[in-house]
Amino acid sequence: MTFVRNAWYVAALPAEVDEGLLSRKLLNDPIVLYRQPDGTCAALLDLCPHRFAPLSMGIIKDGNVQCPYHGLEFDGTGRCVLNPHGSGARPSALDVRSFPVVERDGLIWIWCGEKGAADPNAIPDYSCRISPERRTVGGHAPIDCNYRLLVDNLMDLSHAQFVHRANAQSDAFDRVRREVVVSDGSIQNLMMYPEGSPTTFVAKFLDSGNKPVDLWNDIKWNAVSSMLNFIAFAVSGTPKEQSLNSMGTHIVTPETETTCHYFFGASRNFAVDDPAVDDAFRAWQRQALIQEDKPIVEAVEAMRPVVQRYGLRPAMLACDEAAVRVGREIDRLERAEAA
Amino acid sequence: MTFVRNAWYVAALPAEVDEGLLSRKLLNDPIVLYRQPDGTCAALLDLCPHRFAPLSMGIIKDGNVQCPYHGLEFDGTGRCVLNPHGSGARPSALDVRSFPVVERDGLIWIWCGEKGAADPNAIPDYSCRISPERRTVGGHAPIDCNYRLLVDNLMDLSHAQFVHRANAQSDAFDRVRREVVVSDGSIQNLMMYPEGSPTTFVAKFLDSGNKPVDLWNDIKWNAVSSMLNFIAFAVSGTPKEQSLNSMGTHIVTPETETTCHYFFGASRNFAVDDPAVDDAFRAWQRQALIQEDKPIVEAVEAMRPVVQRYGLRPAMLACDEAAVRVGREIDRLERAEAA
Amino acid sequence: MTFVRNAWYVAALPAEVDEGLLSRKLLNDPIVLYRQPDGTCAALLDLCPHRFAPLSMGIIKDGNVQCPYHGLEFDGTGRCVLNPHGSGARPSALDVRSFPVVERDGLIWIWCGEKGAADPNAIPDYSCRISPERRTVGGHAPIDCNYRLLVDNLMDLSHAQFVHRANAQSDAFDRVRREVVVSDGSIQNLMMYPEGSPTTFVAKFLDSGNKPVDLWNDIKWNAVSSMLNFIAFAVSGTPKEQSLNSMGTHIVTPETETTCHYFFGASRNFAVDDPAVDDAFRAWQRQALIQEDKPIVEAVEAMRPVVQRYGLRPAMLACDEAAVRVGREIDRLERAEAA
Repeated sequence: MTFVRNAWYVAALPAEVDEGLLSRKLLNDPIVLYRQPDGTCAALLDLCPHRFAPLSMGIIKDGNVQCPYHGLEFDGTGRCVLNPHGSGARPSALDVRSFPVVERDGLIWIWCGEKGAADPNAIPDYSCRISPERRTVGGHAPIDCNYRLLVDNLMDLSHAQFVHRANAQSDAFDRVRREVVVSDGSIQNLMMYPEGSPTTFVAKFLDSGNKPVDLWNDIKWNAVSSMLNFIAFAVSGTPKEQSLNSMGTHIVTPETETTCHYFFGASRNFAVDDPAVDDAFRAWQRQALIQEDKPIVEAVEAMRPVVQRYGLRPAMLACDEAAVRVGREIDRLERAEAA
Repeated sequence: MTFVRNAWYVAALPAEVDEGLLSRKLLNDPIVLYRQPDGTCAALLDLCPHRFAPLSMGIIKDGNVQCPYHGLEFDGTGRCVLNPHGSGARPSALDVRSFPVVERDGLIWIWCGEKGAADPNAIPDYSCRISPERRTVGGHAPIDCNYRLLVDNLMDLSHAQFVHRANAQSDAFDRVRREVVVSDGSIQNLMMYPEGSPTTFVAKFLDSGNKPVDLWNDIKWNAVSSMLNFIAFAVSGTPKEQSLNSMGTHIVTPETETTCHYFFGASRNFAVDDPAVDDAFRAWQRQALIQEDKPIVEAVEAMRPVVQRYGLRPAMLACDEAAVRVGREIDRLERAEAA
Repeated sequence: MTFVRNAWYVAALPAEVDEGLLSRKLLNDPIVLYRQPDGTCAALLDLCPHRFAPLSMGIIKDGNVQCPYHGLEFDGTGRCVLNPHGSGARPSALDVRSFPVVERDGLIWIWCGEKGAADPNAIPDYSCRISPERRTVGGHAPIDCNYRLLVDNLMDLSHAQFVHRANAQSDAFDRVRREVVVSDGSIQNLMMYPEGSPTTFVAKFLDSGNKPVDLWNDIKWNAVSSMLNFIAFAVSGTPKEQSLNSMGTHIVTPETETTCHYFFGASRNFAVDDPAVDDAFRAWQRQALIQEDKPIVEAVEAMRPVVQRYGLRPAMLACDEAAVRVGREIDRLERAEAA
C-alpha cells in the first residue's frame, strides 16, 4: 500500500497544538508540530539528523526546538540554528526536513509531498466550521484501519440504517433518490429521502407535528480524503434552503498503512447558542463514529489477511457508485505519483 | 506450515452456539456459526462479500444472518437472500461460502475442505460422551501453539509423571508395557502399568485396601487431530472390562499456524450421579490441561524461531513411537492434499 | 543485524542466579543459568533436544537440570545423564549445548561463540567492583533497543547536560577538554571540565566552599560492549589522584536485535560505609539510566524503520569521535567473524 503524498491532509486540530511539542505520525512519517513565537504552526520531521532521537521529546527554547539528546536546536524551517558541541559548526547535514503547514477553518493542514507543489488554494473549503451563523462541535479519533476503508464508509452512507440503526431509522430509506455528481475534482453522493418518518436523531431537533419530513444527505469528497457531509431535514415541502442542517467535517489522514486519524465535526445552523444541543451532537458523534463506525471499519481491516489470501474483490452494490468513483480517483492519483 | 483441509474438525461445543452468532477462527478461516430456526447449526465464512465486514458482528433476522454494515442477508447455505439496496439484485457474487456441519456426540463437527468430499460417516466415534451409562464433563480452551504440538503431547503420555507429577506418580511407571497398534486409519498407543501404587488421582476413586492396582492408558488417534484416551484402573488382577474407567475426549482444531482450540472431556463409568466427582474431574482437567500442559506446549511453540534458526530436529525417545507414527501420517495427508 | 559471538558478555549479576533456574535470552539464544553443587555457575541452551521444551521450566535434581516435559536430566556440561524412558539409552543427540561461564568481579561472564576460543584472560578488568577500598551499588535493567545504541549513548557523554540536565549542569561544559585514546584494544574518551561550578550531583558529596571544581569523566570501552566510566571531582587544582571518584560499570549484552540487558554499577572511593550515600547513588542510577537514558535510546530504536526507509545516516558531531571509533571497531569484529 502507498499514499498520495502531494496533497493537503489535516495534521491536527488547532487546540491540539498548544504550548508544547506535538508528536504525530502522518503518512508513516513521524512529525513534530509546534507553535512558533508568532503563533503560526510549524511541522518538522520528528527525527534529529544527528542520532535520530525524536525532537518531540525535547523542549521549545527561544522559539526553536531543542533536541532532547545532545541539544541541537532547529527553527521552524528545519534549519539547525545551534550546535552546542565543538566548534559549533552547522553544516546543512544538520538541518531537518520541514513540512508546509496552513491553519485555516479551524484545521491545521499539512503537505507531505514536494514542497514546491504545495498550493494553499488547493485546500478544500471548510469555512462552515468558523461561520458566525453556525456552531461547530467535533473532535479527533485514532482509527485502526487503512484510511481508504473510512473513505468507503463515508462515501456510502446507506450503511446508516444498519450501523446507526438506533438513531437513523426511517420508512423513507426505501424511497431514497440518489445522484452522483462529479465536478471540479470533487465527487458528491447526493441522497434525498422524501416524506418519511423522522429518525430518532431528527426528531430531537425538529417538531414536525406528525407531518412527514424530507431528509437530505449530501456528501462531497475532495482529494485525497476530505469529506463534507451536508445533512438537512425539514417538514416535507419546505425548500432545502430553509431546512435545519449540519455541515459535517469528515477528514481522514493516513497514519500508517493500517491506521488513520479521523477528524470530525458538525457545524449546525440551528440552536447555535444552546449547550444542550452541543451535548446532543457530541453524544451522537461518540455513538455513531466511535462506538458504531469504528468497530466495523477496524473489523474490515482485520479481515485483510483473509481477503488477500483468497484474492477476494469486493462485490459492489448500487449504493457503492460514489465510493467506487472515489476509489478509482485515489487509485489514479497514486499511479500518477508513482510514475 | 499448512493444514489438512479435507477432514472433520470440531468447531465448537453445542452450548457455545446458543441464540447468537459465534465467531471462530478455524484453519485460519474466520467462520460464523449459528443455529437455524430448526435448531441445526450452520457455518459461513465470516466475511460479507460486499465490503468484507464480519457477519458475526451482525444479527440473526428471520433465521438469516444480516450483515452489520449494509444489511445484506444470508441463509445457512450462504445464499444472499436479501439486498436492501437499489433494485435488490442478488447476483451469485453476493453469496458467501458455507461449510458442512454435523452435530453429533455432543460435538459440532465442521468440514473446511471440498464440500463434495464431506462424508459424515468419516467422523470418529465419540458416542461415549452421550452414553447413558457414563457422565461427561469437559470444556474448550484456546492454546497458543500449533495444533501438532498438542497432538505430540497427547500421543506420548509418558510426560504425565513429570508434567502432572502432583497427580500422576506411581512406582509402576518404570514397569510400563507399551504397544502401538495401527489399524483402520487409527493409531493407538496402549500403555499398561501393572501392580503399582495408585496415583493420587486414582486413589480418589478407588479404595484398593493397600493392594496394588493395575492402570491402563490407551490413547487412540484418528485423522487429523481427534484423540480418545481410555484411562482405566482396578485392583490388580481385575479384568480390564470391570475397571473404573474414563473415556477422554481430546480433540484439537487448528486456529492459526501458532494457535489451536482444545476440546476436552472425560466420560466416566462410575459415580455418574455424583456432582462431587464432576467437580473432581473438572479440577483435574483445569490443573492437568490448563495449568500444566498448556504452559509447556506454548513454551515449545515460543521456541520455534530458535529451533528453525539452528535447524534442529527433535531427538526421539522410545516413548515417542506413537507420536512419530501419527506425525508421519499427518505429513502424508498434508502432502496428498498439496499434490 | 548480527552479533559478535566470540566475545565475553555479562549474562547476569551473581545474585540473579540463586538456588533456581534462571532463563535469559542472550544474543538471541535462550539460555538457562544455574549453580552447580560446588557453587559454580553453568549455562545451557534452554532447549531440550527431545521436544524443545525450555529446561528453565524444569527443576534442579541432584545438581542436574531435569526437563519439565519428559524428565531427561542434564549436567552442567550439557551431557544427558538420565533418560527415564525405555532402555534409558542416551545417545549424544540427547546432549544439550553448554556455554563457558566465568564468575569474576561480581559479574557472571558468558562466551556464546566457539568454545575453544574462550579465554578468561580476555575478560576486561572490573576489579574496582570488589575492591575493599570502594563501595559498589548497581543493578540490571532490560532496555528495548539494539545494544549498539546504548554503546553510542555511553561513548558520547556530552548528552549528560541535556538528558541529565537536572543533575549535570555546569558552566564548565563549554570548556571541556576532550581526548580520545586508543590502546591495547580499548578506546577511551577522556573529558576534563576545568574550574567550573559543581553540578547538583557533585555538590552532594563535595563541599568546595564556593571554590571552582575540576571534573573528570573518562570512559573506556572494551570489545564488544563493556564500558568503565571513571568520574572524578575535586576543588580545582587538586591532583586527579586525590579526587573523590566513582568507577562506573556500564556493560551491555544483546538480548535480541532490538533489546539488550544493561548491567550498571558505581564503585565509589568515598563514604564507603554510608548507606545514605548508597541510596543517593541508587537514586541517581534510577533517574539517569532508567528514567532519562532508557526512554531516549528506546525512542531512537523505534525510529529505525523510518531511518531505514529514508536511508538516513547519522550526521556526526565533534563529540562523536569516540563513539564513531568504537562503532567502526565493532563493525570490524562483525565482518571478521562473518568471514
